[in-house]
Amino acid sequence: MYLTQSLRRMAQIAPDRLATVDGTDRRTWAQVTDRTARLAGGLAGLGVGQGDRVAILALNSARYMEAYFAIPWIGAAVVPFNTRWTLEELSYGLNDARPDVLMVDAQFLPMLPDLRRRYPGLRHVIFLNSSRAPDPGLPADVLDYEDLVARSRPAPVLPVPGETMAAICYTGGTTGLSKGVMLSHLAIWASSVALSTDYADLASEGTIFLHAMPLFHSGGSGVLFATTIAGGIHIFHPGFDPKAILQTIQDEKVTHTQLVPTMVRMVLDQPDFDSFDVSTLKTLIYGAAPMTQAQISETAAKLPHVGLQQGYGQTEMAPYISSLLPRHHKDPTKLRSAGVAGLCTDIIVADDAQRELPRGEVGEVLVRGPQMMLGYWEKPEETAKAMVGGWIRTGDAGFMDEDGFVFLIDRLKDMIVTGGENVYSTEVENAVALHPAVASCVVIGVPSDKWGEQVHAIVIARKDHAATPDEIIVHCRQHISGYKVPRSVEFRTDPFPVSGAGKILKREIRKLYWEGRETSLA
Amino acid sequence: MYLTQSLRRMAQIAPDRLATVDGTDRRTWAQVTDRTARLAGGLAGLGVGQGDRVAILALNSARYMEAYFAIPWIGAAVVPFNTRWTLEELSYGLNDARPDVLMVDAQFLPMLPDLRRRYPGLRHVIFLNSSRAPDPGLPADVLDYEDLVARSRPAPVLPVPGETMAAICYTGGTTGLSKGVMLSHLAIWASSVALSTDYADLASEGTIFLHAMPLFHSGGSGVLFATTIAGGIHIFHPGFDPKAILQTIQDEKVTHTQLVPTMVRMVLDQPDFDSFDVSTLKTLIYGAAPMTQAQISETAAKLPHVGLQQGYGQTEMAPYISSLLPRHHKDPTKLRSAGVAGLCTDIIVADDAQRELPRGEVGEVLVRGPQMMLGYWEKPEETAKAMVGGWIRTGDAGFMDEDGFVFLIDRLKDMIVTGGENVYSTEVENAVALHPAVASCVVIGVPSDKWGEQVHAIVIARKDHAATPDEIIVHCRQHISGYKVPRSVEFRTDPFPVSGAGKILKREIRKLYWEGRETSLA
Repeated sequence: MYLTQSLRRMAQIAPDRLATVDGTDRRTWAQVTDRTARLAGGLAGLGVGQGDRVAILALNSARYMEAYFAIPWIGAAVVPFNTRWTLEELSYGLNDARPDVLMVDAQFLPMLPDLRRRYPGLRHVIFLNSSRAPDPGLPADVLDYEDLVARSRPAPVLPVPGETMAAICYTGGTTGLSKGVMLSHLAIWASSVALSTDYADLASEGTIFLHAMPLFHSGGSGVLFATTIAGGIHIFHPGFDPKAILQTIQDEKVTHTQLVPTMVRMVLDQPDFDSFDVSTLKTLIYGAAPMTQAQISETAAKLPHVGLQQGYGQTEMAPYISSLLPRHHKDPTKLRSAGVAGLCTDIIVADDAQRELPRGEVGEVLVRGPQMMLGYWEKPEETAKAMVGGWIRTGDAGFMDEDGFVFLIDRLKDMIVTGGENVYSTEVENAVALHPAVASCVVIGVPSDKWGEQVHAIVIARKDHAATPDEIIVHCRQHISGYKVPRSVEFRTDPFPVSGAGKILKREIRKLYWEGRETSLA
Repeated sequence: MYLTQSLRRMAQIAPDRLATVDGTDRRTWAQVTDRTARLAGGLAGLGVGQGDRVAILALNSARYMEAYFAIPWIGAAVVPFNTRWTLEELSYGLNDARPDVLMVDAQFLPMLPDLRRRYPGLRHVIFLNSSRAPDPGLPADVLDYEDLVARSRPAPVLPVPGETMAAICYTGGTTGLSKGVMLSHLAIWASSVALSTDYADLASEGTIFLHAMPLFHSGGSGVLFATTIAGGIHIFHPGFDPKAILQTIQDEKVTHTQLVPTMVRMVLDQPDFDSFDVSTLKTLIYGAAPMTQAQISETAAKLPHVGLQQGYGQTEMAPYISSLLPRHHKDPTKLRSAGVAGLCTDIIVADDAQRELPRGEVGEVLVRGPQMMLGYWEKPEETAKAMVGGWIRTGDAGFMDEDGFVFLIDRLKDMIVTGGENVYSTEVENAVALHPAVASCVVIGVPSDKWGEQVHAIVIARKDHAATPDEIIVHCRQHISGYKVPRSVEFRTDPFPVSGAGKILKREIRKLYWEGRETSLA
């Protein structure tokens, strides 16, 4: 009842106001809420009930949003699958979460026979890309979304306690088996209401949010729920396309969007950037990595009217932990931090016994709040490792300064100084990761007599994919400046070493290259 | 852990920023948080633990706020007593809530021997008006607040589940026995975070909130917690003094305050109003009653830069239900409504079987959300009557219009048309209630050949107090315009008739006077 309340509230107080835009589909709050209630009714008619799971494997769309509300509407849990997962990983996810129903879009429909073979428990499949008239080419065992919505009656809202599981979101994956993070109605609501307030002008009137980051990720779904609480208009892009982003900002008068720093650069670097009117944009949220002072200056030069906001989160916190607000960006000493505690976050840096350390001392970042996960799905041992003494262990080493800003060591160490230029590994990793053959990657600085450090990428290839080091380097040149492009690329097959909390231990990887030498940050 | 997180967060991210102002006492977030943790430690040292109750009987102060956080800090529940309660009522409250500790200020210290006699369970009393040096005149069995804080070590935060009871707040009282509303950490947090977002500029930087409404009331404590979440500065007035309010707005550059409409008028009517600089005020929140179009126009004329915001709440909802935002005040057809659903409120108008009625039809207003009470303290039958099918019955009859605005019939009926002038009963009731002899009162329109309706007050006097009708009328003349002053005052001893949910049934009272006649609103 928590999660779906925001939708019903908007249908109650602004029934005729625009709610979602997806290509040529434009719907009001009354329409979206009615469709959601009918989809919920349709799912209930298929036998989905309290505690059951419904998986989604799809690119972003307005229907994805409706599903995000319809499934908890009847007390079931959404299982949003990573769209970059391989058949192997999807098969694992299906057999782990055991959903009764899978919602799938055109992009992934061809995988269906394989998925059914690997997971015979699938009772129903719903096709998301339906148009008004059901697609005659749709397999007989696949239901048409619009048809289901049209012929179903609105389901009554099931009042559930706040602790009721509303989603299972898979994290990691680089470490072998993904863990399903169980998020309650309360957790997602608390994270989202805090986001809608902290991301201050999100809650102001007239918010128009462009969703270009994947909705399967808790970073994407977090702003989806927050924007609904705030009553903003949702604009959906199926994926990231820098030119389409500029076009949509202009056409729809977008006020907010969220991107990773590499994407920000790609948008700003569009050759015809200046021909678009982006004056409506108020806030640009970036996550996953800090921005360099240089990139902030460049962004401010091209978007002088836009506030930059950095979010730090984890799926286990549904996902909101902390943020670096627009006003914090004015202080260069804070730019490499993950900002300050979010509105509902308790955050400390602690020793191994969960005792808070004095400011400036390095320890593990621990977090808690109403947005905490219920635990890992069917993994009590992993849960016990991650939730200790009422805290969630982030697995991130860091320190807090006197002003409450959290600095993550791996992010700090992630800066490579090469030929006098600062390069953030994360930015390079984001670029490398855009190559279709890359399953995961780590970018570090390795010793170089010429450059001091040189940018080095270590890549684990996707199954059944291959690439040469040169292909990766050529690919990166399209996305980032020359000095940031890896000088060397290495492929490995072993998984990266990870911490107990599942974080890649870059310092372990770095050690192999720096044994016997000094690094700038110990 | 929910409730106290906001305080610790402010101490973490803004330790040296001003947090509270109480007379000449000015303290930072670091100081307030340290004092709160020490008070919590002191209470723990007195044996207060999880599930225990600590009562407060005091006027507003910065120490009252510290107590509001210190008590839940160790898992105990705050019991804020109504400062207008008689000895009889206090005795009932003490024996009902059974607190181990009572915090009391100078105003109520003289009642202590009587209170101890009536409730022998009191183990400790803490005196709130202490100065740096303990008062030598303090009774031996009373602890000095500052002394306790100074000699106690900060208590560790007790991580408690969100459903843990954080407060017992008494409601009603006109109906014989008050009920203790049990509010959880989650309920108060949810209501407060919604207030801090909905009361939009409360969450913006630079909020300075003047607390002149009693903190024992959930309307007062709601904005206390909301302002803390928002990181605003708290200014405390012990009670309502219209001239002091103007002085403080000027001196402290107050941005927000909350008053009832009668108080707003008294502030605006100060003879030297124009000599004060009130340009910093951004939002004026009023509750308990709607404002007439005339009063809104007058207020806008005197405070053209100020947004008016009306809140509708109930203690059972911790207390936030709905609000009429500043922009809603531009539409005269909405002014008599209670606004639209708050950020976390599900609200419907329903029939006796909790089925939602079509818009415009009159039924009972039902509400639900994460801010719902746990129930009434040790009153399972009353709880079962108030919480039905997952909803809280407000006891208010009303309807919802097509735009989601809630209109409460008793408020609508509460308008008296006398000699062509509109008079809101609530405004008159507020004025009557300021007389020290009045325990409770109802103001209605009764038939008048001359005026159509005339303003009539029915008063239940406080025990051991007396007043004549003329005294009440003379008293009212000081507070409200002549045409609003009751033409007639009647005293009664029987309690007013109430609904199952404890609301005074004005229509029953009105009936006695209108039998056989037509009223404008049936």
